[in-house]
Amino acid sequence: MKNIDPIEQHRKWGGKFEIKSRVDLAEDDILSIAYTPGVGAPCMAIHENPELVYELTRKKNTIAVISDGTAVLGLGDIGPAAAMPVMEGKAILFKEFGDVDAVPICLDTKDPGEIVNIIKAMAPSFGGINLEDISAPRCFEIERRLIEELDIPVFHDDQHGTAIVTLAGLINALRLTGKEMGNVRIVINGAGAAAIAITRLLKDAGAGEIILCDRQGAVYENRPENMNPEKERIAAITNPKHVTGTLADVIRDADVFIGVSAAGALTGEMIGHMAERPIVFACANPVPEIMPDDAKAAGVAVMATGRSDFPNQINNLLAFPGIFRGALDAGVINITTAMKLAAARAIADIIPADELRPDYIMPNALDKAVARNVAKEVERAHAEE
Amino acid sequence: MKNIDPIEQHRKWGGKFEIKSRVDLAEDDILSIAYTPGVGAPCMAIHENPELVYELTRKKNTIAVISDGTAVLGLGDIGPAAAMPVMEGKAILFKEFGDVDAVPICLDTKDPGEIVNIIKAMAPSFGGINLEDISAPRCFEIERRLIEELDIPVFHDDQHGTAIVTLAGLINALRLTGKEMGNVRIVINGAGAAAIAITRLLKDAGAGEIILCDRQGAVYENRPENMNPEKERIAAITNPKHVTGTLADVIRDADVFIGVSAAGALTGEMIGHMAERPIVFACANPVPEIMPDDAKAAGVAVMATGRSDFPNQINNLLAFPGIFRGALDAGVINITTAMKLAAARAIADIIPADELRPDYIMPNALDKAVARNVAKEVERAHAEE
Repeated sequence: MKNIDPIEQHRKWGGKFEIKSRVDLAEDDILSIAYTPGVGAPCMAIHENPELVYELTRKKNTIAVISDGTAVLGLGDIGPAAAMPVMEGKAILFKEFGDVDAVPICLDTKDPGEIVNIIKAMAPSFGGINLEDISAPRCFEIERRLIEELDIPVFHDDQHGTAIVTLAGLINALRLTGKEMGNVRIVINGAGAAAIAITRLLKDAGAGEIILCDRQGAVYENRPENMNPEKERIAAITNPKHVTGTLADVIRDADVFIGVSAAGALTGEMIGHMAERPIVFACANPVPEIMPDDAKAAGVAVMATGRSDFPNQINNLLAFPGIFRGALDAGVINITTAMKLAAARAIADIIPADELRPDYIMPNALDKAVARNVAKEVERAHAEE
Repeated sequence: MKNIDPIEQHRKWGGKFEIKSRVDLAEDDILSIAYTPGVGAPCMAIHENPELVYELTRKKNTIAVISDGTAVLGLGDIGPAAAMPVMEGKAILFKEFGDVDAVPICLDTKDPGEIVNIIKAMAPSFGGINLEDISAPRCFEIERRLIEELDIPVFHDDQHGTAIVTLAGLINALRLTGKEMGNVRIVINGAGAAAIAITRLLKDAGAGEIILCDRQGAVYENRPENMNPEKERIAAITNPKHVTGTLADVIRDADVFIGVSAAGALTGEMIGHMAERPIVFACANPVPEIMPDDAKAAGVAVMATGRSDFPNQINNLLAFPGIFRGALDAGVINITTAMKLAAARAIADIIPADELRPDYIMPNALDKAVARNVAKEVERAHAEE
């Protein structure tokens, strides 16, 4: 990280985004078109044909980045005002990488029903909704209801962005190690929103055996303790042999470890008990489940983390700008599973097969070609559906 | 108006605003400050000291321009999506004239309680709320509750912006005709949100006798028909002699006519019955209560309209950018009567006394010095309170 005090730098910026006019207001008498009285004509045109709002306003390119501040980064429930620096950061990344105009809005309520109603009420102004840093299991209900009830795409990035980028990394790690999605044994450490979304997308991508571990150990159907409806649903499609035990037990013979849990959760000894050519994605932030050096010493074949200062960063930035760029351009109502799978492949395919190396399975997060490729493949998936 | 099709021009613009980054994202490794992991520091700083949200985010310069689409221009209840072109226009005017970042948000609900709750929930992200084109009497309750319950300034422009600019015009018209605020007899035609706000602000400015007229004629206390709570409240501070009758009756001997009603409501004959040197503000849009030529022929001393193609335009643009610029810079919680009066004087005073003429009592709406002066005087009024 740069040798700059982030607080001082934020004070200097005085906010990370601003509004820019697309109208040249210096042009003579342009206000009579952009504002009264001329503006009445596009208003009435939209009133008569609601679809014209996509042609005559910025709705077509504008999304809301919405959080309630309950699960901000690894900081937890710090409240809506304190979440603003993250949402502003996200907004400028949307613009820079996807040319998507994103408005950061943090809500001072934690009630899922109220959050749903607020977002539904705001929807006329936006072409899409990016949910961010909303705690589980509330995030599932909020997203599910919004997807059902709104006619614009809704995407909880902490779930699906993470899942897409993780899948992209896994596609390339499997290519590199000569393993196959349908045959590998995958252990996912964590049972929060990201872990559950990753599990679902890997299943959709054809993954075979997946076992989730939470603090209590392997998650299995009808486990008597520490379950919730979301875990019950995920248990029904994972851990087919009803394996029990701790991470140290279930990691034996696993091909892939995906950590969305906490620092230090994985040890070199555990890696030693994994299958040949083990793949480890240690994505806890800022300190991964195991540090790359320790993982390498333990014989890992491919290693990825969530950090920019190690190779193979699993970074949502590779997904969300292109996802929304493609969704807005294609005018989709939902971001479907096919689009998420297409996005993952689009990210993975940025690296030509003959350039794949253990420390190069993920494109650079700052490579703007990625968002373009993701957008193109999302649009293609939409066209095929 | 320019010879351009406003619908085609809006299609060409593809929306009138966009988001711009204030961070130079080309700078090496700047994302580690603007986004993860560095962004965690300002987040936690705000969590520990909520006031820092004004220093470390854009809240200090960002307002929401919020409408429910129920009273858009003269077009009526056209709905939230159809209101967007107006709100986008307003947003770019805020930026251009006040350097205020305004986000247009149109709400798909007409329930005042729900609108209040939504705006309260969004408030952490915004330094102020501009309410726009919300129908009466709902607008009164919504604004009143938000002012009471929020710690950021809330301003319904259709009421107070109109009132401030009208008062500014009246100050200069009185100067020019040698009349005094406390002695003139004022007839206001209309009893909607704008008429009521104008009445209140003129009373606060020391106006003497004011009579409101609606379609039924003079409004007076305990009038048996066509009253509502808002009219009852305004009747208590106007029409002290309980004058009854139509506009044609009550206009006799009036010094000032202020129309916020409908095309053609005022006739030359009525002007003929006004006091010496009559002042007529015919602000109905797009067609005024009387056309300037007809008013002049009837002997009007000073004439203003809401239109840019006649002299003396009563245009809210003279007020709202400076009001919010001053309110944000001073960090005010409410936009008080003293600030509104100061804003009106700031607008009037842009024209030096010796330059006042019957066709030059209002500054040009595009004169950027006005917003600067308004902001300065709003800040001064705040400092004095």
